[in-house]
Amino acid sequence: SLKEFLKNIPAVDIAELLEDMDSEVAVVVFRLLVKPKAGDVFAYLSTSKGQELLEIFSRQQLSDVMNNLEPDERVTIMEELPGKLTQKVLWSMKSEDQKQVVKLLGYPEESIGRLMNTRLVRLKSHWTVEKSLAHIRVFGDQAETLNVIYVVDEAGKLIDDLRLNQIVMADPQTQISEIMDHTFEALQAVDDQEEAVRMLSKYDRVAMPVVDSDGVLVGIVTVDDVFDVAEEEATEDMQLMAGMNALNKYYSETGIFEMVKKRIGWLAVLFLGQMLTVTALSSFEDTLAAAAILAFFIPMIISSGGNSGSQAATLIIRALSTGDVGRSDWRRILMRELLSGLMLGLIVGILGSIVIAMWLMMRGEILDVLMFYQILTIGMSLVGVVIFGNLTGAMLPFIMTRLGLDPAVTSAPFVATLVDVTGIVIYFSIASFLLKGLIA
Amino acid sequence: SLKEFLKNIPAVDIAELLEDMDSEVAVVVFRLLVKPKAGDVFAYLSTSKGQELLEIFSRQQLSDVMNNLEPDERVTIMEELPGKLTQKVLWSMKSEDQKQVVKLLGYPEESIGRLMNTRLVRLKSHWTVEKSLAHIRVFGDQAETLNVIYVVDEAGKLIDDLRLNQIVMADPQTQISEIMDHTFEALQAVDDQEEAVRMLSKYDRVAMPVVDSDGVLVGIVTVDDVFDVAEEEATEDMQLMAGMNALNKYYSETGIFEMVKKRIGWLAVLFLGQMLTVTALSSFEDTLAAAAILAFFIPMIISSGGNSGSQAATLIIRALSTGDVGRSDWRRILMRELLSGLMLGLIVGILGSIVIAMWLMMRGEILDVLMFYQILTIGMSLVGVVIFGNLTGAMLPFIMTRLGLDPAVTSAPFVATLVDVTGIVIYFSIASFLLKGLIA
Ligand SMILES: [Mg+2]
Ligand SMILES: [Mg+2]
Ligand SMILES: [Mg+2]
Ligand SMILES: [Mg+2]
Ligand SMILES: [Mg+2]
Ligand SMILES: [Mg+2]
Ligand SMILES: [Mg+2]
Ligand SMILES: [Mg+2]
Ligand SMILES: [Mg+2]
Ligand SMILES: [Mg+2]
Ligand SMILES: [Mg+2]
Ligand SMILES: [Mg+2]
Ligand SMILES: [Mg+2]
Repeated sequence: SLKEFLKNIPAVDIAELLEDMDSEVAVVVFRLLVKPKAGDVFAYLSTSKGQELLEIFSRQQLSDVMNNLEPDERVTIMEELPGKLTQKVLWSMKSEDQKQVVKLLGYPEESIGRLMNTRLVRLKSHWTVEKSLAHIRVFGDQAETLNVIYVVDEAGKLIDDLRLNQIVMADPQTQISEIMDHTFEALQAVDDQEEAVRMLSKYDRVAMPVVDSDGVLVGIVTVDDVFDVAEEEATEDMQLMAGMNALNKYYSETGIFEMVKKRIGWLAVLFLGQMLTVTALSSFEDTLAAAAILAFFIPMIISSGGNSGSQAATLIIRALSTGDVGRSDWRRILMRELLSGLMLGLIVGILGSIVIAMWLMMRGEILDVLMFYQILTIGMSLVGVVIFGNLTGAMLPFIMTRLGLDPAVTSAPFVATLVDVTGIVIYFSIASFLLKGLIA
Repeated sequence: SLKEFLKNIPAVDIAELLEDMDSEVAVVVFRLLVKPKAGDVFAYLSTSKGQELLEIFSRQQLSDVMNNLEPDERVTIMEELPGKLTQKVLWSMKSEDQKQVVKLLGYPEESIGRLMNTRLVRLKSHWTVEKSLAHIRVFGDQAETLNVIYVVDEAGKLIDDLRLNQIVMADPQTQISEIMDHTFEALQAVDDQEEAVRMLSKYDRVAMPVVDSDGVLVGIVTVDDVFDVAEEEATEDMQLMAGMNALNKYYSETGIFEMVKKRIGWLAVLFLGQMLTVTALSSFEDTLAAAAILAFFIPMIISSGGNSGSQAATLIIRALSTGDVGRSDWRRILMRELLSGLMLGLIVGILGSIVIAMWLMMRGEILDVLMFYQILTIGMSLVGVVIFGNLTGAMLPFIMTRLGLDPAVTSAPFVATLVDVTGIVIYFSIASFLLKGLIA
């Protein structure tokens, strides 16, 4: 039967199947699931599908689902809920769960407190291994993970973490205090969730305890949720780096008007920034009129600077966000990127001069002094623009950090716009200087 | 003493301290570590620091370190080793470890086989829980993780996975077969490591078993290593998306010449692509000569298309790589991005027309028919270029996928270059058409 069939399918796979079904059909399938599994499946649904179902669930089904979620899953769902559903969903829960979810929602958005599961096993240091295992057999069912077990003192303060295998493999009569080492790493509930990514990844843990400001153990953060946060944060950074606001949702879950809203802000700002290129070009009106051919090379020269800038910005933003490079390393990186910008600029400049000389000759122009100086102007501009782009891209992420902004705000289009303006100034300054006597 | 002090510090923190020390000093600190910890610490060192130490370790120290590594850690180290060190390091290992590491290196680069740990606990289905726990107590020491325990048949084929707590919490006389459900998810050793990221993240596992083509259990992949792979893959994608080759190393570990090599290829290709803008502009030489003012707006118009293209490309690349959007969804996305491109284009076009009208008036130009048509040209070009950029950015990742390339190769600079060329054609075509009778 379908009921039997569903039993052996992982919750996440059932959720995937439901995602493509009509909500009315999905509700029927939900009824075939045993209650704990129904909770698991629901937790894997997309926000939009989940909300659709919450609206049409019967009162009984709603409270069955909500009561079979982990505390952190309830928080995730409540966070996203539209106003009209909030009361209905909250009232479907047991009163202790209601209090708890409201308390957890009191932690700042994107904080570790909102990510943690409050169900966990706590041991006392004076217990024996035997008593501890018996305790785990009784209360372990409620815990999301038993990979790590925590030891607390009488006040509930965290005093150690133990792996379950340390306990399983110890002699049953040993006291917990004997296998303790009093060293542990813990997260702060009010810290940003990115700290959880850094810590679990650094210490290679499958879970980490969360304490409040008094050191009292309040929850546990598990690696599966932190994995999702890491993915979201990388997506967020990529979107910022592409010159838009972070969606904070999947592409497929974002409505078209919402999408336009997230994108238009930076597009408009960058457009206004580009007005500076108009102003810059108009200030070189005379040079441009005297040597119209100079205009042909504007996009090529300025984009070369933008390209090297986009490379440098991405390298540095990612190095900053993975902790490979620190905020104080900017001086070392300035020197390094000056040097690599010089090398890249020279290669592009020489390549560019050759290609453009060939292009001009193919066009039938004669290689005279004017043409030589034109090529020299373009080659030198390329060198200057690539170096400038590289430095801008490498330093802006540090400046953003100093300003308290996300370094990923240094988007490729932002760097490109800055370099477009400067590139025009560099190009026409060199042109005016080199071609002074040669053009009208 | 320092020895006592080091005992309570996590391996990863000691590795961080060693990273900044002279290698000669680091070797001395290494001697103070107990052997298993020395292995753990070594595994956390950067490639460059690790290789420095391997060169100056005494023969004894070298084999102590290598013998205290996990099999997957040995593979990671051997993969990166320069030729001159390979023999020395290989010979320092026990002969069975040598054979094993050579065998693991036989799996393709970036495959799951190279990521897996071969030390794990295997249970038989006819054993009791009691016997199984006794077995785990004896052999569990060798396993990297005991979170999940695997059941195999007589031929070594994987037949189930159990969580340690399922075993701990069961009655000691129960037979393993009674708690089995014969459902499990497994990875293939020859598959790409990105598959491990997708699977562990999807099924929320802390470890997953790896089987060969016969279904025989050959290893286990743990979430800490998969977390690192996910970070590397995101970094790789970001670097590709910024228009460069992936470093496959941390920024701080990449030499300057290597860096220039990774960056110059795309810079040169994009430069050559930009030659098309030169050609395009030169083909509109007459229009440009007749209305020199048109040149002022070239960078602004073409960059607006590049900006919307960079947004769209990033949205789609990331959605493809996280599995949010499938390869076959291109048609739906084409329609969607046509619509959002239209909205964005209209907003930018209208904003642009107003801003440029103001700019021209501030410059003292008179609002006549010519100026009206000039503004109309710019506004319409902006709409066209933004739509075109958006479609190019959204569709190129799909085309790359079709060509068997990484969708992330659709970099922001690549899209921008394509749009620069097309943008010029769009702008000057509209200009020639609208201004035909008005300019010379
Ligand atoms: Mg659950
Ligand atoms: Mg401890
Ligand atoms: Mg790690
Ligand atoms: Mg959770
Ligand atoms: Mg964040
Ligand atoms: Mg962030
Ligand atoms: Mg550009
Ligand atoms: Mg280790
Ligand atoms: Mg199973
Ligand atoms: Mg997951
Ligand atoms: Mg490992
Ligand atoms: Mg890969
Ligand atoms: Mg990849």
